[in-house]
Parts: sequence; structure tokens; C-alpha cells
Amino acid sequence: SMPDVTKALLDGKVTALAYELVQTVDGKLPLLEPMSEVAGKLSVLNGSTALLSQHGGRGILLGGAVGVEPAEVVIIGAGTAGKAAAEIASGMGAKVTILDISHDKLEAVKHQFQGRVQGLYSTKASLERTCQHADLLIGAVLIPGAAAPKLITRQVMRSMKSGSVFVDISVDQGGCAETTKPTSLENPYYQEEGVIHYAVPNMPAQTPRTSTMALTSATLPYIKRIANMGLLASLERSAKHNDLREALNTMDGRLANKAVSEATGFGYYPIDSLI
Amino acid sequence: SMPDVTKALLDGKVTALAYELVQTVDGKLPLLEPMSEVAGKLSVLNGSTALLSQHGGRGILLGGAVGVEPAEVVIIGAGTAGKAAAEIASGMGAKVTILDISHDKLEAVKHQFQGRVQGLYSTKASLERTCQHADLLIGAVLIPGAAAPKLITRQVMRSMKSGSVFVDISVDQGGCAETTKPTSLENPYYQEEGVIHYAVPNMPAQTPRTSTMALTSATLPYIKRIANMGLLASLERSAKHNDLREALNTMDGRLANKAVSEATGFGYYPIDSLI
Amino acid sequence: SMPDVTKALLDGKVTALAYELVQTVDGKLPLLEPMSEVAGKLSVLNGSTALLSQHGGRGILLGGAVGVEPAEVVIIGAGTAGKAAAEIASGMGAKVTILDISHDKLEAVKHQFQGRVQGLYSTKASLERTCQHADLLIGAVLIPGAAAPKLITRQVMRSMKSGSVFVDISVDQGGCAETTKPTSLENPYYQEEGVIHYAVPNMPAQTPRTSTMALTSATLPYIKRIANMGLLASLERSAKHNDLREALNTMDGRLANKAVSEATGFGYYPIDSLI
Amino acid sequence: SMPDVTKALLDGKVTALAYELVQTVDGKLPLLEPMSEVAGKLSVLNGSTALLSQHGGRGILLGGAVGVEPAEVVIIGAGTAGKAAAEIASGMGAKVTILDISHDKLEAVKHQFQGRVQGLYSTKASLERTCQHADLLIGAVLIPGAAAPKLITRQVMRSMKSGSVFVDISVDQGGCAETTKPTSLENPYYQEEGVIHYAVPNMPAQTPRTSTMALTSATLPYIKRIANMGLLASLERSAKHNDLREALNTMDGRLANKAVSEATGFGYYPIDSLI
Amino acid sequence: SMPDVTKALLDGKVTALAYELVQTVDGKLPLLEPMSEVAGKLSVLNGSTALLSQHGGRGILLGGAVGVEPAEVVIIGAGTAGKAAAEIASGMGAKVTILDISHDKLEAVKHQFQGRVQGLYSTKASLERTCQHADLLIGAVLIPGAAAPKLITRQVMRSMKSGSVFVDISVDQGGCAETTKPTSLENPYYQEEGVIHYAVPNMPAQTPRTSTMALTSATLPYIKRIANMGLLASLERSAKHNDLREALNTMDGRLANKAVSEATGFGYYPIDSLI
Amino acid sequence: SMPDVTKALLDGKVTALAYELVQTVDGKLPLLEPMSEVAGKLSVLNGSTALLSQHGGRGILLGGAVGVEPAEVVIIGAGTAGKAAAEIASGMGAKVTILDISHDKLEAVKHQFQGRVQGLYSTKASLERTCQHADLLIGAVLIPGAAAPKLITRQVMRSMKSGSVFVDISVDQGGCAETTKPTSLENPYYQEEGVIHYAVPNMPAQTPRTSTMALTSATLPYIKRIANMGLLASLERSAKHNDLREALNTMDGRLANKAVSEATGFGYYPIDSLI
Repeated sequence: SMPDVTKALLDGKVTALAYELVQTVDGKLPLLEPMSEVAGKLSVLNGSTALLSQHGGRGILLGGAVGVEPAEVVIIGAGTAGKAAAEIASGMGAKVTILDISHDKLEAVKHQFQGRVQGLYSTKASLERTCQHADLLIGAVLIPGAAAPKLITRQVMRSMKSGSVFVDISVDQGGCAETTKPTSLENPYYQEEGVIHYAVPNMPAQTPRTSTMALTSATLPYIKRIANMGLLASLERSAKHNDLREALNTMDGRLANKAVSEATGFGYYPIDSLI
Repeated sequence: SMPDVTKALLDGKVTALAYELVQTVDGKLPLLEPMSEVAGKLSVLNGSTALLSQHGGRGILLGGAVGVEPAEVVIIGAGTAGKAAAEIASGMGAKVTILDISHDKLEAVKHQFQGRVQGLYSTKASLERTCQHADLLIGAVLIPGAAAPKLITRQVMRSMKSGSVFVDISVDQGGCAETTKPTSLENPYYQEEGVIHYAVPNMPAQTPRTSTMALTSATLPYIKRIANMGLLASLERSAKHNDLREALNTMDGRLANKAVSEATGFGYYPIDSLI
Repeated sequence: SMPDVTKALLDGKVTALAYELVQTVDGKLPLLEPMSEVAGKLSVLNGSTALLSQHGGRGILLGGAVGVEPAEVVIIGAGTAGKAAAEIASGMGAKVTILDISHDKLEAVKHQFQGRVQGLYSTKASLERTCQHADLLIGAVLIPGAAAPKLITRQVMRSMKSGSVFVDISVDQGGCAETTKPTSLENPYYQEEGVIHYAVPNMPAQTPRTSTMALTSATLPYIKRIANMGLLASLERSAKHNDLREALNTMDGRLANKAVSEATGFGYYPIDSLI
Repeated sequence: SMPDVTKALLDGKVTALAYELVQTVDGKLPLLEPMSEVAGKLSVLNGSTALLSQHGGRGILLGGAVGVEPAEVVIIGAGTAGKAAAEIASGMGAKVTILDISHDKLEAVKHQFQGRVQGLYSTKASLERTCQHADLLIGAVLIPGAAAPKLITRQVMRSMKSGSVFVDISVDQGGCAETTKPTSLENPYYQEEGVIHYAVPNMPAQTPRTSTMALTSATLPYIKRIANMGLLASLERSAKHNDLREALNTMDGRLANKAVSEATGFGYYPIDSLI
Repeated sequence: SMPDVTKALLDGKVTALAYELVQTVDGKLPLLEPMSEVAGKLSVLNGSTALLSQHGGRGILLGGAVGVEPAEVVIIGAGTAGKAAAEIASGMGAKVTILDISHDKLEAVKHQFQGRVQGLYSTKASLERTCQHADLLIGAVLIPGAAAPKLITRQVMRSMKSGSVFVDISVDQGGCAETTKPTSLENPYYQEEGVIHYAVPNMPAQTPRTSTMALTSATLPYIKRIANMGLLASLERSAKHNDLREALNTMDGRLANKAVSEATGFGYYPIDSLI
Repeated sequence: SMPDVTKALLDGKVTALAYELVQTVDGKLPLLEPMSEVAGKLSVLNGSTALLSQHGGRGILLGGAVGVEPAEVVIIGAGTAGKAAAEIASGMGAKVTILDISHDKLEAVKHQFQGRVQGLYSTKASLERTCQHADLLIGAVLIPGAAAPKLITRQVMRSMKSGSVFVDISVDQGGCAETTKPTSLENPYYQEEGVIHYAVPNMPAQTPRTSTMALTSATLPYIKRIANMGLLASLERSAKHNDLREALNTMDGRLANKAVSEATGFGYYPIDSLI
């Protein structure tokens, strides 16, 4: 449990930095992005496989064929995972719509995809309308450090076509659909409201080589910096790409993470009192 | 057996036209192309799924990730199936090489893909060299009405990376690798020389909706023409898209296909003596 | 009337070649294509202008905006005019579907637009379904030397959204909708079944400079050939781009066009008896 | 008049926030951008319509035709409106040059258009030279909260080709040409120095559906935040996308906008004294 | 001399096939195309090098820079060499115009380059106008088996900018400019009318590896066919890609080439009397 | 020498601003970027010229030909120069890999090149592996105000193919290879370890027109600002694009650059004590 783990780190006077809390000044999470990218790409591969008839899907190709309409792919969330999914789905020839409430993110979608992917402002109405026509629905709603909101209601799921597919990338954060429950690589699918659900946690484990390379190339600069400068100097320096400060959890038997302190009752020491 | 079937058609005075023999004056096989396109697209979906670690593959994403190299996909044959495979593999971000011995087909690859797919003149040497680096190898060598040549030897297969994948689209014509043997949708994979083989016949059965739409839209114009003009008039007329003549097998109890005549011993009547 | 005109040409022993009958061996009409291209491009400009609210349209931009869906443009016919229309509509950011019954033309659409325009096999069902969602419908059904078929019924028109727009490029051949009637540049629009119709004949007259340049560059090679070789030699020679033979109507007081002969009663002389 | 309006807001103790003053820390004006985008796109539609011969223009198609040169479009200003205009003009096949004095904006043009639009550093000389060859000139010089500078002199206008077209998007801010005077949707054009001028204020009114959707999707996040957090909390918080502070004009009978204070004489209260 | 060479071939009873006369039914010259492609690509590399100031050129980059206009490249002739030149020039960021009198070739340019290269119908007027603005002019006027026409007059050359560059790919056929005279790799440049001329014959010799591979991959299919079928059978068969018949010059001591017969006085034997 | 120059500036009470030290808040060096862009583009032109056989290179075309593999270009460094090199190399048809250790820069590569250029995380291993296959290697490792690191060892150079080419853009900062030594425009090449080296300092001098235009358009805004506001006001203001403060070296006989102070011994005055 969290108090036990915390106590162990404190007792052992371990200096602990959390991968998922490294954050740059412009709000990026550099050590989470690589896995989001991999998961986003895999969501389309896994989802289009589920669409094959031997897996119970509608039996359609994402890209259609000459004279035959392509599948409609709807992606909820235009972050790293959502855009990576859009990249693969669009590359496979699908008609892709990606919903988000951020004008900046929708603008980024426009620039990256040059019209091949439709960015759409997300409202209850626009989400319901697009889901009805989706052959493949991808949930890519990731809020750092929080449970994913249940944006896709059971009713929306019920309105979808029979044999369509839903892939929930956010299953690691509890899922973004009311109908999401985690599955496994051995039994990845289940049906709910006529829609095939794919909700395997830790999707990047399917491609360990690519995932390891991607994660390593993001992590290595931080490791090298700590190794070269020492930890204290690394923490002191606060350049754009060096925000290790945010990630410090424990040091010298003291706890530097306020949220963990509140959750566990151990006393909280601001980082500046520690370095 | 073929003689029995032929006899039945002759006895019943059936007018039989063969789908796979409809051929236009410029050598296209309009009723085979749709299924070749679907199979080509599926070969990449099936092959990249086999690359996932739960299926024994190398555990890589076709498109790599930011800073991580994409997979290398090698396609043998730049016909309809090969180009459809290249389209999907390239769309998923892979590094794609397609080999053929036809300068015209390689030029078509260049124009269609605008440099995103590398066309390479196929020789024993160039084939062996590219296969060594392939993560996904696709056999798309289809010779109409003949067994596929065994272009990929066991030795080439042995030179490939462990955990790489081979998809043989030409399995319906016997396969284009020495190591090919047909599998099924239930057990699609087997390993040979360290390479995962995927060799399921009739691949388009995985996407019945797309396949039916594609095949129907190619067939319908012929059906309508026969329905509107009558069969005889359709056969007489020999415009670019109407080469039903090539497809006539039996009519009025007589056999119009020379190859079948030779294989079965029934007498052969040239089409012009029949219509 | 046609008999009078024919008689005048015969009496005057005029050698008359018809622009619209010049045809190459692969079925192209080189002197009609330039105007089809111009009309196709103008159809989108005229149609998207009609969509503005001051002209009674739905008040939408073809390309939408960031986060706002683009208009849906449906084009009937994937010939020169239809593809030119698709080019402009897609360039302005619309979601474009183009229907045709020719697999070859749909394949050409795929190659030219690389997925940015959806080619769809045209059936009664697919036409009705797509028209229902169209904001701009373009009729580009041109059958050389024949009235356009009325593919768009009044019922289809009635199913369209209020304030949507229909542009009929084929109005010069009688129009391809049951509701088409010719209008003029002064009063280009009328409403029928809630749909704004634009049906101005001779659309290329709106851009005389571009049209003249385009037509001239197509015509000049023929003029030069006749000037350099003489008419008879030009007619005798029958290379790919020189099919003036098809275009010969009258010469030396004799009529060489069978259709005109049948329509007027003047005797018919095969071209080979004349040159 | 401004003092009257201000007095009314103050007397009524209205809390007034100005749309056009909402500004994020990186200098974007999120509630103005959607209308700039719409106006930019419309400027090309309106301008290319003016180029048709029935409206007095040169009678050319923006995209030319096979073998015929496209029109030259020159856009002054590479902000949101200018880039949206470039997008449509380039999509219609025109040869587009966009001038600006910001190296960053020219770099953004390069990345967005990948060479299909020429970014050019704007000087008196380069502006004069490019305008001489323009078939369609678009003024997209928008300085927030200030009159547009008269960058296009009468002399430049005189040097343009007869029948060319000028669209002034900045007419709402007084216009960026010496020859600009506002027109109306009923009589949108006038000629000056041989150039057709289009200078209708409030261009987005032509596409009310698209404009409303675009504006709403930009505004809604602010409305929701105020509704959820209350106004004071919203003003206090000063995250990247929440800079409502800049927009506060009046509150509790006090004036928080310095420029308005100077223009009207009402006393000025810094925002921090109000919340 | 030609008679001597012919006599030697006849006396030796050599069977001689001419590379440059192998021609497919659709008019392609499959054994010349590879070298035309290589020469076309090299013409831009050599020409843009000549533009550097150390070689006397205008001192400009083909692609310009951010905010700086690119160079204008004008290419005369839209055959294999011209299109290959356009591909590289456009890829380097230049503004490229390609002139030709064939509507079909200009349409091919449009489809291949999707608007990034301007195809222009070639007339005396359009050629003169575009050359005046050219920084790099490329002559790619190749008429098989004939001297190149002198399309670029001395006067046109004189109208060009000082320090601009002219590369004449057709120098092997005598050059397409009045000012062309062959140079060498050691002294590749000379100036005429202020324009730097590059006119090195046999340009592909600069890249022997690429040239050999390209030529071999085009030749090998013919060699293999002759080796497998024997020469006579190869000549008899006349499929689309097997037109060796056109290439037969001598056999069994008899001359089968009419033009050579006329030029040398040796008797002519039609090919059908020989095989 | 530096002390002499410094003394002269101080004695003359010159106000000296250093071009290379003007730096915006986001770390860009606006007055160095234009020359980096020009040098990057030239590196590919110069390098592909060195690959021609008359210059000792491998005799290959960067873009290969139909059926023939293109050259492999490896670029070390994804800054302005590296990306400009990638743009030209990719535009000429080469297979391009660009290495960097910054995830953000690799992401920018992905977005700019949309898969046509492979971004690769740079490690000792990945650098060595890619260099082995390179036909053209480009060193674009520029660290502002410091000597370039010797990333390319003699051993790496030795592993490259015979006749391959290395262009060192960073020669002005001492070069990024152990084998780099400066050459001149007259004798630009030398061989080391079988690799042709091109290491001409001040590469943009080859294209003075483009370079001057590019540099001027970057500089002019600063000049105008100083001219309009006066130097002091310009220095005081510290907006995003006005960071002249960083560039101030001397003023009123006092030295404001700490590094120069340390190198020369003259006293250092912080800028805020001077203005």
C-alpha cells in the first residue's frame, strides 16, 4: 500500500524521483509521452484487428477499397495518444475525426494532418453524433495524475453500430467509458451493448523493443544529467528540459510530495528546504 | 474433380463464365483486382499483429516512435496486392521496399508513393540483401492462372532476423516461399527458420463487408450489361471493359476453354463457332 | 435547323470538322476536355458562393474552421469535370465524395487525390444516401453527344438539407436532375425542393481568359498539323493524337457523318470514299 | 458614444469583459482568431468571384487549367487571416505569395505550406514588386486595437493590372489601402485605379453557421470556467488559456481599462484593487 | 563511318540490335529512359552548382531561404528528362515551370507534381516570357533519332538575367539552343550572352554506379528473354514490352533497317523476310 | 587579438552589439539562423557534387533512379542547419536520417517531414551504425559560442564506404569530426580514411545574393527598432523579439560582456549599471 511504500522509501533514506511527475515548464510530461505515443499507435492496430470477422467485428477494412467507403474512426482526446492514433488510422486510409475541447490542440491537429484528419470541438452533442457513425471508437482521454472522466456513457455505446469496436487507452486510469473493464492480452475482448471492447492495460507491453527504445531515449538525457552534475545540482538548475524538481518524492528520509503527504500522513517538506 | 464438373456443365448446357478469366485488352483482370487489393491491405494488418510479442514476434511497432527507427517492410511484387500492402505499411510509418522486375510497375510505384516507398529492381542479389533486414516480409507474387514461383528460398528465410514475420498472400496459388504451408484463421501462425509465417488462404474472408462491396462494384457492370444486352450481344461486343469473351467456358453443351479441353479431353470449340 | 445548316455546308462545298467529335483512340475528347476542366472548377466557386447566406444558402464555409466541420460536397461523375470539381472542393477544405460506376475512374480518383477525396461506386442506394448529407451537390454527368441522364430525381432533391446547393454542369446537355432548368448569369439561382439550383449554361464564359488559353492550347496542335501537312494528309494519318477523321462532317459537297445523315436525310459517304 | 456606453456600464455596476481583449500569455487573441480565420477564407472566395467577367474582373480562374498559368495571389500579412487566405488560395491552385516582416511568421508559413506558398519579407520594394503581378491582392493587416496602417498606397494600386481584384479584410479597422472605403453585401464592389475593390465589413456574417460554431467553440471554455468557478476565481487564476484579466473593463461601478479611462475621463482602477 | 560499320556487321553476319531503337507499342523507348532520367536529375545538380558565385553564377540558392524568394527554374520539354529535372528542382525548393506542346504531357506533369510544378503550353511567346525570369534554364528537348530543334534562340538567351545558367541536356543531339556548343567535365562552363552555359555530353557518366544500375535493370529483361527463348522466338513474339523487332539492324549478312539502308546504299530486307 | 579589439572599442567609446549574441527568450539566435539555413542547404548541394565521379566520389545520384536505391544521407544535429540539410536531401530523393539527443527536436523533425526523414535518438551506438551505411554524412553540430564537439571519430570515418562524402558545416567552430581541417573554395576537397571531406568555412559566401537577403530580413527589424526608439529604449524594452540586451558588448568605454571580461582582464559592468 502507499503508506508502506512511502515508509520504506523514507526509512531507507532513498532519493526517489517519480517518472510520471517529471514535467517541463510548458506542461509537457516528457517521460509519459513516449508510452502515450506507442499506446496510441497500438490502439488502431488492436482495434482494426478486432474489426475482423473472426474476432466478432463488423468485418471491414479500415481503408475500404477502390469504390468502397473506408471505416469511420472517432478519437476522443487530441493529446499525444490521440494524435498518434489519428496518425495510424489516417495512414491506413480511414476517415478520422478527433474531438477535443482545446482550440490549441485542434489547431495542432489541423497543422499536423493538413486536412486528412477532422478536428472537432467536443461537446456532448458532437460526441454523441459522431459516435453513432463510428466503426472504431478510441478513448484517449488522459488527465495526468487523475482518473479518466467517463465521457462515453452507456447510452452512447448503445447507439453505436453492432460489431463496431471501442478501444480504451485510458483503461490504466480507470477508463473513459462507463462500460470499460480491464481485460488481458489472453482475452482482450468482451462485448457490451453490441460493441466489442478492447481494454488491455499497459498496451505498450505488446511492443517491448519499440517501447524500451522510446522510453530510454526520453529518459537518458535526465540520467546523464544527474550522473554528470550530481543530483543536487540537477535539481537546483531549472531549465526548460530539466524539471526534475517536480518529480522529487523522497530524499534523506523526508517527503517532498504534498499529495503523497496528504494521502499518507507523513510530514511534508518543501523541496527548497531539502536541497 | 475437374472432368466431373466440366461434364456437369456440358450436360446441363450451362453457359459458364469464369470470374478469374475476365480480362481487359490491357491485361487487367478486373474481377480479381478487388480481392488482391483487400488481401494486400490485410497482409500488413495481419503481419504487424504477428510482430507483437504476444504472438511471438519481435515486439516492434511498424511505425516506430519519435527517435526510434520504424520497421522495415519488404514486399515482393508490385502488382495490385503488393501496392495495396505498400500503401498500408507506408501509411503506418514503416520503411517500405517493394521489388519487381517490371520497369513500368516500378515507375508506377514511384508515381503513386512519391518517394515514400522505395521501388527496387528485383534480382536474386537485391532480394537476398533486402530480406536480411526485413522485419516484415510480404509475398505478393501472383501469376494469373499459374502456381506462384518459389522466389523466397529456405536459405533466404534462414537469413532473416529472429522473430521477424512473413505473410504469404500467394498461398492460394501454392505460396511464393519454399517454407510456405497453408494455415487457418484459428491457427494462423507457425515458425520456420525463426520466422513467423502467416499463410491463411482466402484472406479477404476476414472482412466480408468490404470484400463483398468491392467485388460487387467490380462485377455489377458486367451483370448489368449481360442483363441489358443479352449474353450473345455482350460476348460479340469487344470494348475495353467488356472482355467477357475470354471468360466463356461452356455454352450449349460445348466447351470453349482450350486449357480445360486439354486437361479433361472434352472437345474444344473456339468461341467464334459458338456465338 | 440542322437540315438547313447541313445543306448550307454541302452547297458551299465546305470542309467541316466538328470540335466535339475529335476523338483519340483511347476515347478522349481532346477539344472538350479543357472546357470540362474549367466548368468543373467553376462549379465549386459558383456553388460555394451560393452557399453564402446573402444568396439564400446554408451560410457555411466549404472548409469549415478549426474545430468546425467542413461542408460535404458530393459530385456525380468522375470524368474531367468531376475531377476538376473535386480538386477545387478538396483544396478549399471540403469533405468530398465522388460517385461513378467505372472502377478505372474510381482508381484514377484514388491515385490523383491520395485519399483526400472519397471515390464511391455509384448505385441508386449510394447516390441517395450521400445526397442526403450533401451541402453542395454537383452534377458532372456528361455523355458525349447525348442528353445527360436524369440521375438525380426530384425525390433525391427533396431529401437534401434546406439551403443546400445544387450546381448542374451538365445543363448544356439538358441537365442531370429532374429539377434542372437553365438559368442565366444575371439570375443564376432558383429554389426547388428547398435546394438552391445553379444551372447557367456555358459556364466557362465566366473566365474568358483562362478558357481561351485552355482551348487554344488544345486546338493549336491540330491547326498547325492541318496547316503544315494539308487537310488530306492530316486525315489520312491516324496517330494517337490526330483523330481528325472522327470529326469530319462535310467535304466537297458530301456528308461524312452517319448520325447527321440519318437525322437529315442527306446521303452518307464513308470517309474513305472521300479522301 | 464611448463615454455614454462606459457611463451606462458603470452606473449599472455591470461586470463587463471585452471579447477582443482576452489575450493569452503568448500574445494570442483566442476570441478574435476564429473570425479572422473565417474572414481570411472568405476573402479568397469573394475575391475569386470578383475576378469573374460578369463582375468586371479579368475573367480568370484562380487555378488556371492544364497548360494555363494560375492566377497570382498576394497577401499582405501572415497572421491568422492571412494564413487562412493562403490556405484557400493555394488549395484552389493559385500561385500565392504572403508578405510579412516577422521572421517567425514567415517560418510558420514555410512549415504550414511546405513550399506551396511563398513567404516573402515585406519591404516597400518587395510589396510594390509583387503587387504589380497580382491578379488578386488581399489585405490582411490587422493590428489588435489599432487602425490598420495604409501599407498599400494609391500608387501601388495604380500599378496593378486592369481588372485585378483587391479584397480588404482589414476594412473593419479602417482598411490597409489608401483607396479602401467600406461597401455592403448588396453592392460589394467598386473600381478604383482600374482595380475592383471588395471591402465589405464583417465578412463572417456571410457564413453565420460556420462563424457561430467557430466563435462558440472558442468562447465556451471561458463561459464554462466562469460558470463553474465564479468570476472572481476565474480572474484570479491566470493560467495560459485563462487570461480573462486583460479583458475586464468594468466591475462594481469602477473602470479597469486604462485606455478607456484616458479616452473618457472616468477614473481608472487597476484590476488588483478590484478583485 | 556509318557505311564501314554497316559493312563490317554485314560481312561478319552479326545479328545487331540497336539499344536506342527498342520501342514499345505505346511509343516508349525503354532503354533510353533510364539515362534520360539520370541526365535530367543531374542537370539540376550541375546547374545549381553553376549558380554559385565561385563558378560565375548569380550566387543564389535554388530554394531561397525563409523570407527570400527561391530561384525560378524553366524547363523546356516534359519528357522523361524534363520531368526528372522538375522533380529535383522542385524538391530543392525552386519555383519550376515546365513547357511542352503536348496536352497529355502537361496533364501528366499536373498529376505527378500536384501543383508544385507549373506546366505551361509552349509557344514562342510563352517560352520567351518565362525565359526572361529564369535563373536556371534547362533544355530537355529530345526527339528520338533526330537533331534537337533550336528552340532557344540567341535572342532569348540575350534576354536572360546576367549570371543565370543554361544547362543543355540535349547537347548529345546537337543542343536545343543556338548558343550551345559541347564542353567537357574538365571545363564544363562557358559564357554566352551573359548566361553561363553547361553543355557536357553524356552527363550520366558523372554517376556511373547509378547509371549502370538503372540501365542494367532496364536491359536485363530483354537479355533474359533472348537467352531463354532464343533470338528468333523473341523477335517473333511482339508483346507490349518485347518490341525488339524495331531494334533489329543486321542479321545473317542482311540489313533490316530502312534508314540505314537509305544512308548507306546497302540493300534493305524487311524483318519478316529474315525471321 | 581579442584584447586589442576590445581595447579599441572601449577607447573609442563605441557601443558594440554582437550579432551572434542576440538571443530571444525561447533560446533562438535570430541573427545566426539565416546563415545556418543557407549553410545547411548548401551542404547537400556541395556534398552531392562531391559524390560525382569526376570529384572522386562514389558516382551516385542522391535520388537514385527508377528501380535503383537512393543514397543514404546521415545528418548529425537537428538544429536549423541540420533540418535545412534534411529538407534539400529529402527533396532530392535521398533516404535521410537525422540524429539528435533532443526529443523535442526529433518531434519537430517528425512534424516538418511527415515521415520522409527519419529522426533517430543519437547515441554512440546509433551514430556508428548509421554512419557505416552513409553515402553522404553531414556534420551540423553547432553549439552557440563554443567549439563543436568531435562527435565523429577517426574510427567512425574509417568505417564508412570508400568514396563516400563528409561535409562539415561546423568547420567554422573547429569541426565536429576528428578528421576535419578547413579547406577553401579553390580546393574544397581532401580525402581522409577513404572519405572525401568538404570543409570550406563560411559556406554562405557561395550564394551572396540569397545570404544577404536572408540576413538582412532578419536584421532589419532590429535596425529599425534602434533607429526608431533609440538604443537605450531598445535595450530597456525586453520583449520576445527584442533581446538586444544579450548582445551588448561595450558602451561608453565600459565592457558589458562577462566572458570577454574574463578573457581579456578588462573590468566587467553589468548591463543594468550602464543603461
